[in-house]
Amino acid sequence: MKVLEPLLEFLSIPSVSTDPARKGEVRRAALWLGERLKALGFATELHETPLHPILYAERIVEEGAPTVLVYGHYDVQPEDPLELWETPPFAPVVKDGRLYARGASDDKGQLWAHVAALEGLSARVNVKFLVEGEEEIGSPHLPAFVRENREKLRADVVLISDGAMFAPHTPTLTYGLRGLCYLEVHLKGARRDLHSGAFGGVAPNPIQALGWLLARLKDERTGKILIPGFYEGVRPPSEEERRLWPSLDEEALKRELGVEVLPGEEGYSPLERLWARPTLDPNGIWGGYQGEGSKTVIPAEAGMKLSMRLVPDQDPEAVADLAEAYLKALCPPGYQLAVKRLHGGKPVLTDPHSPPMRLMARALEEVWGRPPVYTREGGTIPVVAELKEALGVPIVLLGLGLPDDNLHAPNEKLDLVNLEKGIAAIRRFHELLAQEGL
Amino acid sequence: MKVLEPLLEFLSIPSVSTDPARKGEVRRAALWLGERLKALGFATELHETPLHPILYAERIVEEGAPTVLVYGHYDVQPEDPLELWETPPFAPVVKDGRLYARGASDDKGQLWAHVAALEGLSARVNVKFLVEGEEEIGSPHLPAFVRENREKLRADVVLISDGAMFAPHTPTLTYGLRGLCYLEVHLKGARRDLHSGAFGGVAPNPIQALGWLLARLKDERTGKILIPGFYEGVRPPSEEERRLWPSLDEEALKRELGVEVLPGEEGYSPLERLWARPTLDPNGIWGGYQGEGSKTVIPAEAGMKLSMRLVPDQDPEAVADLAEAYLKALCPPGYQLAVKRLHGGKPVLTDPHSPPMRLMARALEEVWGRPPVYTREGGTIPVVAELKEALGVPIVLLGLGLPDDNLHAPNEKLDLVNLEKGIAAIRRFHELLAQEGL
Repeated sequence: MKVLEPLLEFLSIPSVSTDPARKGEVRRAALWLGERLKALGFATELHETPLHPILYAERIVEEGAPTVLVYGHYDVQPEDPLELWETPPFAPVVKDGRLYARGASDDKGQLWAHVAALEGLSARVNVKFLVEGEEEIGSPHLPAFVRENREKLRADVVLISDGAMFAPHTPTLTYGLRGLCYLEVHLKGARRDLHSGAFGGVAPNPIQALGWLLARLKDERTGKILIPGFYEGVRPPSEEERRLWPSLDEEALKRELGVEVLPGEEGYSPLERLWARPTLDPNGIWGGYQGEGSKTVIPAEAGMKLSMRLVPDQDPEAVADLAEAYLKALCPPGYQLAVKRLHGGKPVLTDPHSPPMRLMARALEEVWGRPPVYTREGGTIPVVAELKEALGVPIVLLGLGLPDDNLHAPNEKLDLVNLEKGIAAIRRFHELLAQEGL
Repeated sequence: MKVLEPLLEFLSIPSVSTDPARKGEVRRAALWLGERLKALGFATELHETPLHPILYAERIVEEGAPTVLVYGHYDVQPEDPLELWETPPFAPVVKDGRLYARGASDDKGQLWAHVAALEGLSARVNVKFLVEGEEEIGSPHLPAFVRENREKLRADVVLISDGAMFAPHTPTLTYGLRGLCYLEVHLKGARRDLHSGAFGGVAPNPIQALGWLLARLKDERTGKILIPGFYEGVRPPSEEERRLWPSLDEEALKRELGVEVLPGEEGYSPLERLWARPTLDPNGIWGGYQGEGSKTVIPAEAGMKLSMRLVPDQDPEAVADLAEAYLKALCPPGYQLAVKRLHGGKPVLTDPHSPPMRLMARALEEVWGRPPVYTREGGTIPVVAELKEALGVPIVLLGLGLPDDNLHAPNEKLDLVNLEKGIAAIRRFHELLAQEGL
C-alpha cells in the first residue's frame, strides 16, 4: 500500500509533546510533514511558538474555488508504561490488518488520510492544513495563532479526523466533543518524611488526605461529582439529538473493557454519560514508598493529577476555579494544598445537518455502502471550539479510529480498512465539493 | 574516638534488606560484625535463612556467671528519596557532634554501643549476641530461630538498643512497644489503560476507588480507624503507668515536624496516641501517570501500602484478617482487590520495675547524673515479643537515639553524646551485674 510507507516513517518519530527531552523529535515530525506537503504542491510555513511549531500549508488552485481547512496534530502521547507494549511504540508494524504504533490513530494516522487523499486528485478545491504539535498538552499556543490568522485560515469548511467511528464498519460523523479541565494537586504534611512508628498518631499523612479529598470529589454511591456548582452549566441533550444517537452495545463494551459493570453517574445511560455528561477522573497518583517490600514511612508529600471532561455549556476556566476553591476548602488542618492548572479545552456542539456534513454523509455512504451514524465524542479537541468561534464556518468531524484503538495507552493501533475507506471518502468529498459547491 | 572508626566502616555497607539487589551487601555487614566480635573473644556462628543470615556470637567467661543476651539488627531501611540526603547515605560523616548515615541510629549505631562497651571490660558476665539482617522487613525468619534455639539463647536478661530517648539529655528506659501489621493493596479496574475522554463515564478508575477505600479506613473528622472490630483488643494504659509517663512538649514537636496541628484520634492526648493507641497510615500509593505534564489516562490498576501500628492486646494476624475482610467488603463493583500481607509484629509490654531494669536505671543515673524516664515507644521491634515468650526473662529496652534521628527518612543521624553515654552506661550495667547479680 503506497500510502502506508511514508506513514510508517511519520510514526517512527517519537514526537511526545509533553516530554521536554523530545523537543527535537517533535520539531522533526513537523518538518517531515512539511516536506511531504511540499511534494504535493503546497506552500508551507513553520510558525514558531514558545514550545512546538505550528505547521501551516496551503495549495490554492483557484481563487474563488471552495476552500477546505484540515486541522490535525503531529504530536503524540507519552508511551509509558513501556513494558506493556507488545511491539515498540515507535517501531510501527502491521499485523492482521492493523497498524500498531503510538500515534497510529491519535492523530498521525488520521491526519495522514487527509494528505494521502490528495495524491493524484485534480478536484478544483483549495486546501489548507493547520497542524499543531501541542494537542496532547492542551494546545496552549494554537488559539492565539488562530485568532491572529483568521484571514489566512479562511475556508468554507473545516475537516478534522482525530476521533473514532462508533463501531467497526460504521461510518460516523461527530457533531459534539467534551471539553477538558486538567489539574495537578500537591499536598504537603510535615516538613520531612517520618517513621510511622515514631510519629504515627500525631503526623499528617498526605496520602490519607488525598484519599479524603478523592472521596469528597466524587460520591461513591451515586457517581456524582461533588464540587459545588459543577453541574450548573450542563445543557441536557435535545430530544431530536437523542433520536439521532445509535444504540450502544453495552455487553460488547463490558467485554472490551474486561469489566462486569460500567460504573458511572446514577440516572444516566452509559451513552449519555460518555457523550453528554461531565466526568471527573484522577489520572495519576503518587506518594511515599512505591518500591519492593515494605517501608514504614509517613511521607512529607503526595500528589495527584485530576481531570474533568466537560460538556456544553461548562467553561473550563470557571470549572477550574470551582474545583480549586472546593479542594482548598476541603484541605484538612495540618496540610498545605497547591493546585496547578495543566490545561483545558472548551466543549463544543456543531450542527449535524450543515451542508458540508450532508456532503460528507454522501461521500461516506458511497464508499461504505451505508449512511453514517451521528455521534458525540467523549474526548476533547481543544482547537475545535476555537476554530468554530474564529472562522464561523461548519466543522466536519470525521473520526477514522475505533473505540478499541488504545489511545493514550499501550499498543495503540489503527485498522487499515478504516484508513483506506477514510482516504476514499475524503477524496470523494473533495470531488463532490468541486462539482457542487456548498 | 576509637569506637567511631569501625562504626563508620559498618555504616558504609549498604545492607538494605528489602532490596534483592543488595543481598550481598547485607551478608557483608553480617560477616563484618562477626569479625569484630571474634576480635573481642567471641565464638561466632552464621545461621543461614532463606534470605539474610542470623549472626549468633557468645563469649562465656564462666558457667554460672550472669548472662546477657544482646539483640540488634545489621540491616537498614532503603535510602530513597536519595535526592533529599545532604550527604550520601552510605558515606558516613560526623558533623556538629552528630553522625550522619543510613543506619546511624537504626540500628547499626545503637548495636555498636553494645560491642564497643565490651572493649577492655573484665566484668565476669557471659555475653551473647543475636543479630539479624531482616528487622526492616519484619523479621520473617528470626522467630523460628529463637524458638528452635532457646537453650543456646538462654540468658538472665535481654538488652536491646533499637529505639529513642524521650528527649535530649534524658536517659530513657522503654517498657512497651507497638506492634505492626503491614499490607499491600492492589486494585484492578478495566483490562487495560483507557483514554479518559473516550471512556470517562463508564470506566472503573482504581485511583478513585483507592480514595474511597482510604476515606472508609479512617474517619476524616474523628481520626478513628473504621475497620470493624479493630479496637476490640486494645488495653487502656493503667493509672500507675500514666503517672510514670513524662510530659510531651507538644509545641516542640510541632516545631520539629513543621506543622501547626498534630492530627490524630479524637479524645486522646498526642502522647497516648503515640504510645498506647493503634494507628493506620498509608505508606505509599501509586497509579496512572506520574510524569511531567498531563496524560489523560484512566489506569487499569493502582495500589497502596498500608500499615497499622498495634497496641496490647491486638494481634497482627487477627488485625490483618479484619482489615482484609473489610477492604474486600468495601471494594466497589467493577474492581478486583487483592491484599498481600508484607509483615507483622506483636505489640509488647514489659515490667518497668524488673531487677535488670532497676540495675540499668542505676547505671544510667551514674552516667547521666539523673534518673531515667520510663516510656513506651510507638515503633515496633517484632522480635521483642518473641524473645519475651521464648526465654521468659526480663527485657531491657535502652534507646540511644532521639526522636529527630530521621529514622527511615533522609539524613538519618545519631548524636555522638548519646553513643558515648550509652556505651558508658552499658559498661556500668555489666559491672553492676557482675558485682551484684540480679
